[in-house]
Amino acid sequence: MNIQELMSNMGKQARAAARLLSGVTPGQKNEALASVAAKLRGSAERLTTENEKDLAAGKKAGLTSAMLDRLTLNEKRIEEMALAVEEIAALPDPVGEVTGIWTRPSGFKVGRMRAPIGVIGIIYESRPNVTIDAAALCLKSGNACILRGGSEAIHSNQVLAEIFREAVSSAGLPAQAAQAVPTTDREAVRALLTLDDHVDLIIPRGGKGLIRMIMENSTIPVIKHLDGICHTYVDSGADEKMALDICINAKLNRPGTCNAMETMLVHRDMAGSFLKKVLAKFREEGVEIRGCPLTKKAEPWVREAADEDWATEYLDRILNVRVVADMDEAMDHIARFGSAHTDVIVTMNYANAQRFTKEVDSAAVMVNASSRLHDGFVFGLGAEIGISTDKLHARGPMGLVELTTEKWVVLGEGHLRD
Amino acid sequence: MNIQELMSNMGKQARAAARLLSGVTPGQKNEALASVAAKLRGSAERLTTENEKDLAAGKKAGLTSAMLDRLTLNEKRIEEMALAVEEIAALPDPVGEVTGIWTRPSGFKVGRMRAPIGVIGIIYESRPNVTIDAAALCLKSGNACILRGGSEAIHSNQVLAEIFREAVSSAGLPAQAAQAVPTTDREAVRALLTLDDHVDLIIPRGGKGLIRMIMENSTIPVIKHLDGICHTYVDSGADEKMALDICINAKLNRPGTCNAMETMLVHRDMAGSFLKKVLAKFREEGVEIRGCPLTKKAEPWVREAADEDWATEYLDRILNVRVVADMDEAMDHIARFGSAHTDVIVTMNYANAQRFTKEVDSAAVMVNASSRLHDGFVFGLGAEIGISTDKLHARGPMGLVELTTEKWVVLGEGHLRD
Repeated sequence: MNIQELMSNMGKQARAAARLLSGVTPGQKNEALASVAAKLRGSAERLTTENEKDLAAGKKAGLTSAMLDRLTLNEKRIEEMALAVEEIAALPDPVGEVTGIWTRPSGFKVGRMRAPIGVIGIIYESRPNVTIDAAALCLKSGNACILRGGSEAIHSNQVLAEIFREAVSSAGLPAQAAQAVPTTDREAVRALLTLDDHVDLIIPRGGKGLIRMIMENSTIPVIKHLDGICHTYVDSGADEKMALDICINAKLNRPGTCNAMETMLVHRDMAGSFLKKVLAKFREEGVEIRGCPLTKKAEPWVREAADEDWATEYLDRILNVRVVADMDEAMDHIARFGSAHTDVIVTMNYANAQRFTKEVDSAAVMVNASSRLHDGFVFGLGAEIGISTDKLHARGPMGLVELTTEKWVVLGEGHLRD
Repeated sequence: MNIQELMSNMGKQARAAARLLSGVTPGQKNEALASVAAKLRGSAERLTTENEKDLAAGKKAGLTSAMLDRLTLNEKRIEEMALAVEEIAALPDPVGEVTGIWTRPSGFKVGRMRAPIGVIGIIYESRPNVTIDAAALCLKSGNACILRGGSEAIHSNQVLAEIFREAVSSAGLPAQAAQAVPTTDREAVRALLTLDDHVDLIIPRGGKGLIRMIMENSTIPVIKHLDGICHTYVDSGADEKMALDICINAKLNRPGTCNAMETMLVHRDMAGSFLKKVLAKFREEGVEIRGCPLTKKAEPWVREAADEDWATEYLDRILNVRVVADMDEAMDHIARFGSAHTDVIVTMNYANAQRFTKEVDSAAVMVNASSRLHDGFVFGLGAEIGISTDKLHARGPMGLVELTTEKWVVLGEGHLRD
């Protein structure tokens, strides 16, 4: 069987599974998830055997120790996966929720009802636990999924998907609710992207190159989880201590995450004492500063930022700093260089807080808070499949609700159109 | 200037206009729309002069009289356009609506706020009034738009867009809020589809070929307005009179619309008296019937349906008819051949009504009602830009709310991530 046929068959099986899933109850899905958690806990040996194949190949291929660590499955991580599945099972079921219903003058009722999207293709590069998280979120929201993880985790991902399917099937739900692509061939991704008859949505998580390729080749709607070039703008008259704490937290709480600050914009009124203090603190913490000419003038040790720096997601202990004349200049900068992920204003000025939240066009806009708060758990939404940087359907944390669609339901008693 | 540059410039100007629109008030937008309506009413001569160029070219090109009629702008139609703009102005403004806000344990507030999508590209083939409708809906929802109408209406669309822009500009809003592509060159569409830096959404309305081309070439999210292969399933025990009225209305109220019935599915228990009556009525009305073998057996004058008929949107006085063993067979048929637009069950059976609405995966599922009711005005939503056949972001009638996105707003008092 060639790759095109292989993927097309997976698509057909996923579509058939999705149809069956549309008829099941929340209780059946939760039972299936409970049996996934139990089976994971009982499969430590099976999992580590397959995982060791990936680790051996990874060592041979020269993966760094950090990468090998991320790839490793052990008792603790297996338990964490099982717990995550149980947490997803415990969340409210979004399917079937009626989000509004009204009666029209002629007497028929019309409203919206949440339904699964159908079949979702997920393309990711990260740890093997994403395989279980993604499959569990899709099952809970009534969707079938086709999973394509990184080639370095192929054996781990295959066995995780097998365990998931065995458990789901033993609970009486369709085994093909979750399928992992069984090959590392890149043609499989291209084939997946054109299965528009069978697949309703592609969710890519990964680097810019992968996501660009997907945008250019997919005939299926895509919801991207792309880069976070997040800004903090410290307004004139901001509380110095609060601004300092927020900027330090936004940069240093976890520099490698998409909601970490990459650029700090400072009103020129704050370019004296505040700028001196915050830069001294960053220097002390070993953060490399790339600054505008005014920043460099204030602190000669600062390296001058190149044009491309403003558009770079460092995910590292590097920070751009720019002194701006006013909030308009800050918002212009964000519109030009930002990635519409998370942007923050630190201010005591009511009108500026209002304008910033209204006019800055990002998935999350924040007043007097660290950009690191942009997270489904922190917001209180429960597990998420990622943070969407797209504007349509799902913006920001993409959880169970965002994995559903709303259909219109009309309840008539013989109603006709005039 | 080549086409790529032309379109890229339009994209940049649209993006700049969209940024300005994010800061305006509902009142400013409504004033601008009022001035559009006034200017349309005062521009009859200017409009008909340009429209006559299209009509002359259309006659030369051999357009049918129905097509020429659709293309014609006259006093009555200009007044209708002006009224439509005033109706859009009178609708509630969706921008800035906060759809939920809550306080997290550490005390910060988080919620969602409706915001414009940004820049929307609309590709359409129909009457010139779409130019004004689309521009007005986009302006009201705070979006800039790039409009690409059919080549047969190029002069009419250009002058309509000019009038719109003059009026908007005289009201103090950015003139580039609405731009019409000034060339009929097809390369302009391809160029538009890859302006992903400047354009946030493509809405195509048109035939399958156009929409397929757009799916294959767009790097921008697309919300399709595609075909309606709508089914009515007449269940065992349905009220005969109600089923007859619904089927006749669904087929004949306006056969050329996307929510007209294309296939009638009849439970075998209803293949006697009901089928006889409904087919006699359709025959009387001059509807050509293409039937399954059982239908043909019951009514020998019926033509036998070919496989491709079940997947055809006739938009005409032609109807497919199939006798099915039960509701499962009907739902299988809909899943296989339907276009997920509008599907109806006529039934007195509570359990079947529940299952049908839950399991049939269409933009609108209806019980005991004509599929023709699937319409933004009929549902009470006001003006719509079309009926989305996609599942993401907007499903069914796409009105002002669906032309917005929701961003997350966090209001803190120095809140940090632990």
